[in-house]
Order: sequence, then C-alpha cells, then structure tokens
Amino acid sequence: MLILHDYLPSGNGYKVRLLLHQLGIPFRLVEHDVVAGATRRPEFLALNPTGRIPVLQLQDGTILSESGAILCYLAVDSAFWPTERLERAQTLQWLFFEQYSHEPYLAVARFLRMAPNDPRQADLPRLLERGHAALAVMEQHLAGRHYLVGERYGVADIALYAYTHVAHEGGFDLTAFPRIWAWLERVRSQPGHVPIDWRPN
Amino acid sequence: MLILHDYLPSGNGYKVRLLLHQLGIPFRLVEHDVVAGATRRPEFLALNPTGRIPVLQLQDGTILSESGAILCYLAVDSAFWPTERLERAQTLQWLFFEQYSHEPYLAVARFLRMAPNDPRQADLPRLLERGHAALAVMEQHLAGRHYLVGERYGVADIALYAYTHVAHEGGFDLTAFPRIWAWLERVRSQPGHVPIDWRPN
Repeated sequence: MLILHDYLPSGNGYKVRLLLHQLGIPFRLVEHDVVAGATRRPEFLALNPTGRIPVLQLQDGTILSESGAILCYLAVDSAFWPTERLERAQTLQWLFFEQYSHEPYLAVARFLRMAPNDPRQADLPRLLERGHAALAVMEQHLAGRHYLVGERYGVADIALYAYTHVAHEGGFDLTAFPRIWAWLERVRSQPGHVPIDWRPN
Repeated sequence: MLILHDYLPSGNGYKVRLLLHQLGIPFRLVEHDVVAGATRRPEFLALNPTGRIPVLQLQDGTILSESGAILCYLAVDSAFWPTERLERAQTLQWLFFEQYSHEPYLAVARFLRMAPNDPRQADLPRLLERGHAALAVMEQHLAGRHYLVGERYGVADIALYAYTHVAHEGGFDLTAFPRIWAWLERVRSQPGHVPIDWRPN
C-alpha cells in the first residue's frame, strides 16, 4: 500500500490526499507535526532531505517528494491528467505558478496567522499584496472558463484549490474575486471531493 | 518560428535557451530588460500576467510561461525527457525543488549582488543560508550519481544547472560541494552546450 507522509493542515499535502481519494487509491497516512519540528528530525530528513511534506512512499520503498511531482505521478493515465501535449504543459504551468507565485504568499500568510509569535509577522503586508496579485491572475484567467485547463476538472484545479479555498485563513478577502468564488464551488462539487481535514480510515 | 521572450542574464530563461539549442530547434529571441521594468509594462503583462520571463510563443500565437513547464513541453519525445513514469516524476521533483527551494535563494542573492541599492539587501544572510541548504541537498543526491535522474543528462540537469553554475555571483562558495563541481563540468561538456549569454544568430 502507498504511504503518504503528511501534515493534515498542509494544503500541499491536501492536494495529494484529495487526488488519491478521487482516484480511489487506498493509502496509509503517516502524520508528522510540522509545527513541532517533526520534519526537521534525522528520521524525516532521511526520507526527504528538504524536510518538507508531503512525501509519497511507493510499495517498493521509493520516495517521491514535491506535491506537484506527486500529483503528476499519480494522475498519469487518469481523467485528471490531460491527454494533449499543450494541455499537459498548461497544467504544469499552473503547478509551477502555484509553487512560485501563489503558495509562498497564501500559505505563509495563513501559517503566520496560526503562529502569532513567528518573527516573520512583519512580512505579512508584503505577503498579502503578492498573494492578492496571484489571485488576480487566477481571476483574470477564469473569465469565460469553468476550469483552469481545457474546460475539464484536473490536476491544475486540485493544485490551486488547496491554498485558495483557505485563503481567508491568511487574511485574504475572496469576495473581490467572484470567478474564483464560483470555481471553488465547482471544484467542491466534484465526485469524491473531501475536505482538507479528511483522513483515510 | 518559435518566439522566446526572455532576458539574457536570467537563469530561468537560460534553461529554455540551452534546451532549444541542444534540441536543434530554431527560435527568435525577443529581449525584455527586466531590471528597467520592461516586464511590468502593459504590453508584456498582456503576454504573461505574472510579469515574468521566459515566455514561449508558439507558431499559432499560444503563450506558455513558467520555465519548468516550457522545458517539459519542448523535451517531450526527446532524449532529454525520460520515458519511464517514475523518472518523469523524479525529473518534475527536481524542477519543483529548483523553483521552491533553490532559485528563490540562489537567483535572488545573485540579483541583489547586481543591485546594491535594492531594499532586500538585509535578506542576504538568510538567502545564503537557505541557498547553501539547497546546494547540500544536491551534493548529497549526487553521491554515486553522474546526473540528477536516471544516470542520463536531461531536463532536470538543465533546470538545476542554470542558477547553480552562477552561484558564485550570488556569494556562494561551490568549492565546499565537490560533487556539484564535477556535475557542472559534466553538464558543460554535453554536445550543444552554450553559455548563459549565448544568443541565437
């Protein structure tokens, strides 16, 4: 059985949990308390030297890290991965956008709201400004579109949904982004959707 | 003909230029002076709303952004893209690692050395610390390996080479990383290799 090393509040982990559930792939969840420093301990660094979750452990023990890479690995040959070359590249474009221009602002702002003593509190105004810029890029793209790529729900939607749907927890006001708001609802209404705090039984 | 919107000193742009040259694909280079603010002007934002280079314009006018997505798009069916599912995922793992844990430190430290009046100068010690941590992850991985994935030169090597080979320009000391040093030399000796300031004629 696949093993997912993860931390339940993490949006990066949630992407993988949501896709695994929608693919109907059983897995064992091993939780690591990121806030308590569990991913900085030698046992975890032996799994993933970057000290980050999620980490997927295949049946033969092979380790795969980086949420975007894990999504693409799992989605191959499924309805969640486009068949066409350009749409595959556009999916990757959104995954890289998320990790470079979206997650570092939305996820970190959310984390700082949960950790009021973190020394990076002074960064919050900049994180909110950059995060709003990322949301504006999504809002513009969703004009006349139902999903991010190819008018079909897929890996790009899963990857962007993870931290966008909890943006308010970081202090972002999504009411200014009506197309994102409607898109979140479309993602939420997909068969097999589960919330961020869902655990496999 | 393909059009690449780019900025010559950019490592992100260099990844695409290097791969295009090694694939033997002709392209037209359109240069935008990032430092002078060219990528923040409305004409450029109409191409890519994130205001970032490189941007690849296909023959039908379709726009593709994010260096990692462009590399994967171009490398499909070439010797630079693995044929095996796990090695494809491992390639993506390195591309996401580069954009999340490597480029934000190595590239930004290099940029700050070129822009002494930038207000982010105070970040430099943190950037150097995080960048050295990324280099240590590469150094550990290269133990007993010649290339990052599957013992074959490919897209992962191109993506990581771009900012690693100019790390010294950001104040990083690569002599502490002998395996990286040897790997850089192996990448540099590949057929069709061109330096970062190469332009198509």
